[in-house]
Formats: sequence, structure tokens, C-alpha cells
Amino acid sequence: MVDASLQSPHQVVIVGGGFGGLYAAKALRRAPVQVTLVDKRNFHLFQPLLYQVATGALSPADIASPIRAVIGSHKNAKVLLSEVVDIDPKQQKLMLRDEEDINYDTLIVATGVSHHYFGNDQWQGMAPGLKTVEDALEIRRRIFTAFEAAEKEPDPEKRRAWLTFVIVGGGPTGVELAGAIAELAYKTLRDEFQSINTAEAKVLLLEGMERILPPYPPELSAEAEVSLGKLGVTVRTKTMVTDIVDNIVTVRQGENLEKIPARTILWAAGVKASAMGKVLAERTGAKLDRAGRVIVEPDLSVPGHDKIFVIGDLANFTHQNERPLPGIAPVAMQEGEYVAKLIQKRLKGNSLPPFNYIDAGSLAVIGRNAAVVNLNFARFSGFIAWLVWVFVHIYYLVEFDNKLVVMIQWAWNYFTRKSGARLITDTVLQQKIEANHNGNGNVPVDIAIKSQLKVEA
Amino acid sequence: MVDASLQSPHQVVIVGGGFGGLYAAKALRRAPVQVTLVDKRNFHLFQPLLYQVATGALSPADIASPIRAVIGSHKNAKVLLSEVVDIDPKQQKLMLRDEEDINYDTLIVATGVSHHYFGNDQWQGMAPGLKTVEDALEIRRRIFTAFEAAEKEPDPEKRRAWLTFVIVGGGPTGVELAGAIAELAYKTLRDEFQSINTAEAKVLLLEGMERILPPYPPELSAEAEVSLGKLGVTVRTKTMVTDIVDNIVTVRQGENLEKIPARTILWAAGVKASAMGKVLAERTGAKLDRAGRVIVEPDLSVPGHDKIFVIGDLANFTHQNERPLPGIAPVAMQEGEYVAKLIQKRLKGNSLPPFNYIDAGSLAVIGRNAAVVNLNFARFSGFIAWLVWVFVHIYYLVEFDNKLVVMIQWAWNYFTRKSGARLITDTVLQQKIEANHNGNGNVPVDIAIKSQLKVEA
Repeated sequence: MVDASLQSPHQVVIVGGGFGGLYAAKALRRAPVQVTLVDKRNFHLFQPLLYQVATGALSPADIASPIRAVIGSHKNAKVLLSEVVDIDPKQQKLMLRDEEDINYDTLIVATGVSHHYFGNDQWQGMAPGLKTVEDALEIRRRIFTAFEAAEKEPDPEKRRAWLTFVIVGGGPTGVELAGAIAELAYKTLRDEFQSINTAEAKVLLLEGMERILPPYPPELSAEAEVSLGKLGVTVRTKTMVTDIVDNIVTVRQGENLEKIPARTILWAAGVKASAMGKVLAERTGAKLDRAGRVIVEPDLSVPGHDKIFVIGDLANFTHQNERPLPGIAPVAMQEGEYVAKLIQKRLKGNSLPPFNYIDAGSLAVIGRNAAVVNLNFARFSGFIAWLVWVFVHIYYLVEFDNKLVVMIQWAWNYFTRKSGARLITDTVLQQKIEANHNGNGNVPVDIAIKSQLKVEA
Repeated sequence: MVDASLQSPHQVVIVGGGFGGLYAAKALRRAPVQVTLVDKRNFHLFQPLLYQVATGALSPADIASPIRAVIGSHKNAKVLLSEVVDIDPKQQKLMLRDEEDINYDTLIVATGVSHHYFGNDQWQGMAPGLKTVEDALEIRRRIFTAFEAAEKEPDPEKRRAWLTFVIVGGGPTGVELAGAIAELAYKTLRDEFQSINTAEAKVLLLEGMERILPPYPPELSAEAEVSLGKLGVTVRTKTMVTDIVDNIVTVRQGENLEKIPARTILWAAGVKASAMGKVLAERTGAKLDRAGRVIVEPDLSVPGHDKIFVIGDLANFTHQNERPLPGIAPVAMQEGEYVAKLIQKRLKGNSLPPFNYIDAGSLAVIGRNAAVVNLNFARFSGFIAWLVWVFVHIYYLVEFDNKLVVMIQWAWNYFTRKSGARLITDTVLQQKIEANHNGNGNVPVDIAIKSQLKVEA
């Protein structure tokens, strides 16, 4: 028998540095395993606050933590900036883009989701979604460019289109975006323009179901709608987008079709699994749901492949209710911790009961001073809910990286009603630099484009 | 005689929202004039701290203030997000890109400078300079990508090239960049990589003259060199770059030619006037110096055109010393205030003595705890100089927009040695979005590219 101390440690490879992947890595910190975390990006993004970047309240770095800074001090963890392109479950190997293959003993896939346009991918350019830092900066650029363009537009009809903001999708992201844009238009920017009255802006929140925040209890949805109304947001439920073309959104409410001219259209309506879902389905025979998420076993493993786990937004876990667990941070965190625990149990020859999500509640912010909180045993809205929202977000934000600065920035924004991060930065100037940048190789241009294409495909 | 109150107020048009333009607008706040500030960007950038964005210590919004937030509350000021493409001095008119012409009674041109590659514009892609937010983000991306690439590179020679950082130009920007990169390599990132020792990185600062910080007194240059050496920076003076190709910098020191393989090359060596210099020369017959700056009269006006002023980095003012005033913020600020005062005097039929720059001293930071300060009556370096540097920068930074957050961020970075803003963001993903974005018109793509081309031409 071989001395165990001479064997190389159990290799755990985690793909994706979101909430699921990082929580798994953290929970394995003292385990007798070697952890390799692979991510395309060098930072973890606190997505629940991404809408604040998109609306100019915070900077990307305020809500991002370098992955190396988070787990670089773990003695058993290694960070690899790369992209997984394929998997070989038989040989327990991952193929990386432009890197050598890596082996795993246990694989945790936590690559999340991207936007879904329900078969209308041509809308993407006109109605960007909000998943990445780049998305947020693009949305920020569009929002503030719209006000500047309106200021210069002499034609009243065209000006109205510049001052119309349509948010498609009444889930938490849509609600948060609509509230924040309304505050910009009706409060923050009010005295800063000379030719336009920013308070004439129209902020429309469209939801296909019969109420916004559909997963919440009906009374909270109703209160959220009242709060949004007070902020100046027009909420339209049972309203479907049927077309987006030439800055005109066509919506259907019952039998009525209406065309809304709007220069800023934001997509918060649907998500689709990242490309790893498809790869897993092909290589392991795993079943995917309609959104491309991997249907997992009660222990979060892929059916027939007990060394491969899928966690977070990419996983479809239906063993607790008939509906899959929602794609929110607390689910991903608990799943990451569960798999880390299961790996350690298995190494000792033990087992663990199936995963069980403990729902501590959900919350969504509507604007300055207003939020809705559903703690299961209690539901409330308004200012107290807003304080809970602030507290919970600060608590989780500082966990990885002490983002003291965000607290100060929030306090500052709150008391001054200012919004300092509303830079219109031009990614286009950048393209010029890239184009000049021939033969350097420093810029993995094709990788980035390909990976993006892949997600969209 | 026409009643003066019925006449439209004196129209002052300021082109450029840097230190010069904003100080002029602020000084005219209570003057009986109508001010229009035209800028391509919607924010003022605190350029002296741009190197901190490039090295991941601060976010762009930390050092940028929306121009509307700064002067939007002035009753007599209007902000126009646009670009001046031509000027007609006879008709006192400015031609804007995609906007109607605007008239001026007095024109203040403060459009600054961009990089200068001394006839080697092909170096630009390989050795970006640091003037805009986009430049800073591109440099940040290259620096942190280099460490990530080194971590994955098995070939020792290639790895060495990834870990070699060459900064061309030993002025304040070059010194600050070199110091900050050395601190990243030898302190901040030290424990976060597994395959490489970041302390093996080489940071080279190249200066063509016989000492770094040439405009400073020689003893301060010497002390700066000692401080940089302690941080781990290799300073090479009397060293000229003769070629940059395929990630190899060729340098000449006396008769010696040397080829240095380096994947990160940063340009801090020279500046060139913005395009407005050429336009002014063509339309007014103004003389330009070798860098393209406009040679101005003792009152900062263009010779023969007493209604047109040039201030800030774009102006060459030689009436005080034989050398032109340096391109630094204090010069621009004082020039902006002078012209504002002169306009008010003229409206009352009075005059003003020629502009006289009051040099309060100059300072450059070298790294954590070290700086050099030249107050004319006193010169010092080290920790006290660093405190002076911090104080002065905070003082001016909070002037336009209370950037309390920067202070907190600095304190945090200082005590933790962390550097939270080191995101590798991909402007390339963005291009994909733009490409999809056909027919929207929301994105002034061609404008941005054209304006960039113009500056480079």
C-alpha cells in the first residue's frame, strides 16, 4: 500500500469565481485538497449592486474584488485566469483556451448565466442586459448620453424619445434599474441642464406577468408598485415586448399593440445558462432545462457523474419544491458550501444528506428609502426594509474585501443626492488603440470575442 | 442708444473642461456674461492622479467630476457636450461636430495636449501614454494581464518579458508610474501568485536627459532616484528609446545599443498640442511651437485676435522666462482666472497688466511615504514631502466635488497595502456589443473615432 502522504492531494477544480465558486473555495480552505479556481475574469463581481454601477452611483471596482486578493492567501488554492472550452469526464480533464489541459478529481462548475432574448438575439444591441461590468458601463454610457443628446435636440418628438427609458422585465434588477433612473431624472440631474427639464423624462417598467416581482408575495409586489409610482416610474404589467427596432419598442397588452419611441431600452427579462451547460450536456448526457441550466441530483452532482457538481445559477435544483431554486446569491453560496462539505465527507468515506436550501428571505430595493423585504416569517416595505437592504448588502460586500469605501460613498450619495460615477467613457476610443496594437499579443482580443460569441450562440 | 439691459449678454465660450477651462468658468460665475463650456467629455478629469487609476489604486470616477455637477448650478453657465471642429474668427463663430454653429464674443481655448511619439506614431499601440480615462484603463489592463500571463508561462525567458515593465520618460508621470508598479510587484501582489515570484519583476524607468525630473533642482532629482531605487525601480538616465517593435524596446545609452524584451511598455515621454492648436494657426495665423502649442501674447490672447485666448497646456507663454511655462495644473488654473478677470475688466472699459504666473512650487510623488517637493524657498523629500503631496492633492481634488471617498480609499490602501481597483476589464467584449448595435444611433461611434484620429494626425 502506498503511503498516503506521498500521494498528490485530491484535486478540486472550480470553474467560475462568482458566489458559488468562491464560497466553495473558502469552505475548502482547510481541507486536505488542492483547489484550482479557473475564471475568465480576474475579479469576483458583486452582481446584486451592478445596477448602481449602471446608474452612476458606484464604480466597478467598488463592487468587484480581485479573486487573487480573496483566496490568494489560501495555502491550498491556486487561481488560473483562463476559459474552459471542453471537458473529458472519462479522463477527468478540462481543456482550457490557449493553456494546457488540467486534471481534476472533483469538478465544480459554477459559470452562471447570461441574458436571454427568447429567440430575439437581434435585440441585444438595442436593449443591453446587465450581467457584466462591461454591460454596466455600456448602460451607464447610454443613460447619460441620452440626457446629453436630449439637451441638444431641438425637435420635441426626438427629444421625448431621448428622455424615454424603457426597462423590460419587472424582477429585482428591473425594479432597481427603474427606481435608480427615476431618481436620476427627477432628483439628481434636475438642476444641471439648461435646455431640458429632466423631470419630463419617462421611465417605463414593463412586466409580462400580472405583477412586478412575481416570486414575491402579492402584497409586496403591490407595495413595490406604489413606491415606484411615487418615484415617477410608470409600471405596466401584463405587457409583452413583441419587437424592438429603430429605437421603437412595440408592446402588447392584451389585444392592444403600442409603439413606444425610446432611445434607451434595458433588458432585465430573462437569463440563459452559460456555455458550460451545453458542454456538460454533450459530454455527460446531463439534461438541460429550457433556459439551458443543468438539472442536478439531490447532492448537486450531474446524473451518472458523481465527481462533477453544478452549483449556482447554472444549476436547476428541483428536489425541494417543484420550482427550481431561484438564481440568487444565497442559493449559490449555500450550494458552494454544501459541495465543499460533501467533498470532505467523501474523502473520509462518509456521506451527507441531500442539499437543502435554507431560505432566509429575499429583498429588493426600489430607491432611496424604499425596499421590499420578505423574511418568510415577516414581510415589510418602506424605510425599514431599505435599512435592512443596506445592512445585508454591506454585510456580504465586505465579506470578501473590506469595501468600507462603498459605505462612505453611499452615505455621501444619500445625503448629497449626488451621483459621482456618471462618466460617459468611450469604449470606442479604445478600439482605435487596440487596432494600432498589432503584433503585441498582450491583448487576447480573439479570445474575448470568441468567448462572447459562444455565450451568445 | 440701445438700452443695455435689452442687449443679449456678452457670450463667453470656453472650449475644454480641464483645469484652465473650469477655473475660467468658475471665476466668471458672478460676471454679467453668458458662459458656454464645450467639452467632448461629460467630466473633468483630475489628471495628476490618473496614474493611480492606471495602477489599480483608484477608480476613474474617484478622480473625475461631472462638468454639469461642477458648474451646472452657475446661473450664467451652460454645458455643451460636443466637439469644436473649426473656428471663424471674422464671424466670431465656432463650428461643432453634428451641432449648429455657436457664436462668441470672447473665446477661451483650453483643449490641452495629447501624447507625442516624436515621429514614431507606430509605437503608440505598443507603448500607450496616460492622458485619458481610457488610457488609464488600458494601462491597468496591461499591467495586471502581464502578471497573469507570467503566472501561466512555463518558458523562463518569455516569463521574464511578461515581468519586465519599461516606463519611457522620467518626468513626474513616469516617476509616479514606475513607483506604483514597483509597489504592486514587490508588495501588493507578492503573496497572491503561486507559480511566479512577483518580486522578480523588473521595473525600468528610462530618461533621455542626464537626470530624472529634469525641471526640478538637481538634489531633488538625486533624492528621487534614491527613493525609486529603494522601491526596486531601475533608473537609467541619458537613455534614448530608438525603437519599439515586437515587445522589444531598443535603447541607446551613449554608444551602446541594447534590446530589452518587455511586454508592458508605457509612454510618459512627450506631449503634443491637441488639434485645436492647428485649427487656430490656420484660421488666425497664430504661431505654434515645436510641440504644436500656440504662442500667446502677454495677456494670453492670440496675436492680432484680442477676443481669442489660449490657456493651459495648449498655450506657450514665454513672457516671464525664456522657457515656456510648464504644462501643469497650477499654470492652467491661474491662466483661467486671469482671462476671466480680464474679460470683466474689458467689459467695464478697463485693462489689466500682463499675466504673471506665481509659482508656488512643484511636487512629485514616488511611492508610499516618499515624494519630492520644491517650494522654491524650501526643498525637501521623503515622508514629509509625501504628506505635503497628499494634502495638496486632496485639497484640489475636493474643490470641485467632495471626493471624501478618495481619502478613505487612500487611507485603506495605505494601511492594508491593498489595491482594490485592479480589474482587468475587456473593452473588446464591448466592441461586440457595439457591432450588434446597428441602426440605433445612440452611440456616436464615428464621432469618437474621428476625433481620436484627428488628435493623432
